Amino acid sequence: MRLSDEEILKRLESLANRVAEQILRGKPPRIEIPVRTLSNTIWDEKRRILRLGPAKAKREFLDAREVRKFMQTLLMLSLIVMARREGDYPTIRDLYYMGKHTISYVDISGRTRKEETWNDQRESNSIIEDIEVATGILREEMGIMHDAKGKMVGNIIIRSKGYLIDCSKMGSGAYAIPPNPDRLEIVKVEADYVLVIEKDAIFERLNEEEFWRRENCILITGKGQPDRSTRRMVRRLWEEFGLPIYVLTDADPYGWYIYSVYRSGSISLSYESEKLACPEVRFIGVTTSDIDKYNIPRNYIIAATDRDLKRANEMSKYPWFQSKAWQYELKLFLKRKEKIEIEALSGHGFKFLSNVYIPEKIEKRLWIV
Amino acid sequence: MRLSDEEILKRLESLANRVAEQILRGKPPRIEIPVRTLSNTIWDEKRRILRLGPAKAKREFLDAREVRKFMQTLLMLSLIVMARREGDYPTIRDLYYMGKHTISYVDISGRTRKEETWNDQRESNSIIEDIEVATGILREEMGIMHDAKGKMVGNIIIRSKGYLIDCSKMGSGAYAIPPNPDRLEIVKVEADYVLVIEKDAIFERLNEEEFWRRENCILITGKGQPDRSTRRMVRRLWEEFGLPIYVLTDADPYGWYIYSVYRSGSISLSYESEKLACPEVRFIGVTTSDIDKYNIPRNYIIAATDRDLKRANEMSKYPWFQSKAWQYELKLFLKRKEKIEIEALSGHGFKFLSNVYIPEKIEKRLWIV
Repeated sequence: MRLSDEEILKRLESLANRVAEQILRGKPPRIEIPVRTLSNTIWDEKRRILRLGPAKAKREFLDAREVRKFMQTLLMLSLIVMARREGDYPTIRDLYYMGKHTISYVDISGRTRKEETWNDQRESNSIIEDIEVATGILREEMGIMHDAKGKMVGNIIIRSKGYLIDCSKMGSGAYAIPPNPDRLEIVKVEADYVLVIEKDAIFERLNEEEFWRRENCILITGKGQPDRSTRRMVRRLWEEFGLPIYVLTDADPYGWYIYSVYRSGSISLSYESEKLACPEVRFIGVTTSDIDKYNIPRNYIIAATDRDLKRANEMSKYPWFQSKAWQYELKLFLKRKEKIEIEALSGHGFKFLSNVYIPEKIEKRLWIV
Repeated sequence: MRLSDEEILKRLESLANRVAEQILRGKPPRIEIPVRTLSNTIWDEKRRILRLGPAKAKREFLDAREVRKFMQTLLMLSLIVMARREGDYPTIRDLYYMGKHTISYVDISGRTRKEETWNDQRESNSIIEDIEVATGILREEMGIMHDAKGKMVGNIIIRSKGYLIDCSKMGSGAYAIPPNPDRLEIVKVEADYVLVIEKDAIFERLNEEEFWRRENCILITGKGQPDRSTRRMVRRLWEEFGLPIYVLTDADPYGWYIYSVYRSGSISLSYESEKLACPEVRFIGVTTSDIDKYNIPRNYIIAATDRDLKRANEMSKYPWFQSKAWQYELKLFLKRKEKIEIEALSGHGFKFLSNVYIPEKIEKRLWIV
């Protein structure tokens, strides 16, 4: 369900209106914001995503401990509403600078004091996240710009700003996914599945050999840990078109965590999961058990670091890694202490990955979840 | 001058043929490779680019100190030639794995010994660079894939794999520049200039408000320190279409060095400059003197770190920063020890950058070189 520009502006204004009404009724103004801490992050077993729990924090204007955050929330809200009314597209850093100023005041002992509206961008970013959870609107939908890492290519036609964009006609290049994929109209999808690739260089290789045409699929890369817009694009293809989503990463805890972010959401931004997570994503590899299965030569294997082992140990306890298949893979990794990269498959020839490994994993249903 | 696929294969084969001929004539085989060290990197005052000097190294097969590199060079060359003949597009990491194997041999005292063809990817990458300088062909032209960071949007139409791609019709997204821009045919350019933006988020903002349409330009970002394909794309627009190139970065040594990489080349990869550097690139900002000129509020200013100062001090000695304007800016920075980001201009309103700052710098010729 995509919101129109008018609805977004209305929702933002209504958060501010609630404060105005409190003041007009002579009540001490306050704002309620869902709590974004780890203790309020819950694993929703039924929907299979990480999401926020029910805890809410009240920010009271007439409370010395909370008034700073109260002020910051209204300041940021006014900047975002202003940008939407004017049709501006500020970055999160623009918003930090726009709102940053020094407040001078005289304290009870008559001394002039100075305070910054916010000291660093972490403070202003955190307020943007508060406004996201309070309104249920992603910052992308509010027209806030940020780096966009994702690329897409394959049998999909979209419409943006009135232009039809055929992602099967990008040649050696690709379509760079915009910061807010919700503004894209997906006109036509003629693909059997989506292949999400961790590494950009592998994406380029598969694109150059037109893997997506032969396999009738859509290729997407989020270049390592994916950003929100890549995740949103993947989510839309799954939700609106029912496409199976396959993820391909290196065989190491870093790669497997990337898979889980696409699938279940990230721990630090669990409030976004309901719009960004894709609970049916399938992992096609590379797995630790592929080392034997695909006869990876001993000298291609990389020794796991202590950090890898610690990470895998933590992951083995996450509720979203409790399946038999994942427990087997994680335990095997912890036992063998060995990792490999996607490119290790090139030992069997440059085309082994695209002609054998990926099609086999998908056709023989060898993915794990 | 772009080389055809046949010419590229021929040049690669001829390097190998020279070795074969030596062997057939009964001579000890050797390869000559231009030296890529700093001591052989020279500043070409006339052409205003960093480039390799005349020093060459000989790799003799019958020299125990050189035979390993000799073997590595021929091994890598054979992999690249094989990929070109088969129409494969390996990544640099694929080539590392493809060529990595263990050589077992018996030494003079009868012991079995083992040696890897290369121990890590640094070794194999370095050999690829040797082959680049020895043949005068970029690895991109050899069909070797790698991460591609660049994006482009604006009044330019290209052709790739037979498809016409109109970069003014990408909507909120952009055209992701492929790893080898030399394979793009630039069909039509209707733009007055190219604006290269350090930061992707600013690129997204200017694209969303269609700055390039209003200003009749092409927007490109290399996302920080640019990769080779972004630089090659910029170079082609300058060389083949004579477009002025303007660079916009943060006001700090990191940003200014990015400008100089587009303009003069990078110190570590000086052999690429002749194809990647663009000696007429103009820097439109942000400069240290902009702090006063544009009344940047005191609390937007970031204190320079010791590393920033060390970097600026080094840069002030580089031959390509010897202009009056740059010496003034670098000295001012070293004196004030203050840096600012592009987004600091948003203090004057979200549209100040696109409506005032950039057009003013270009129209009033306030750039520096």
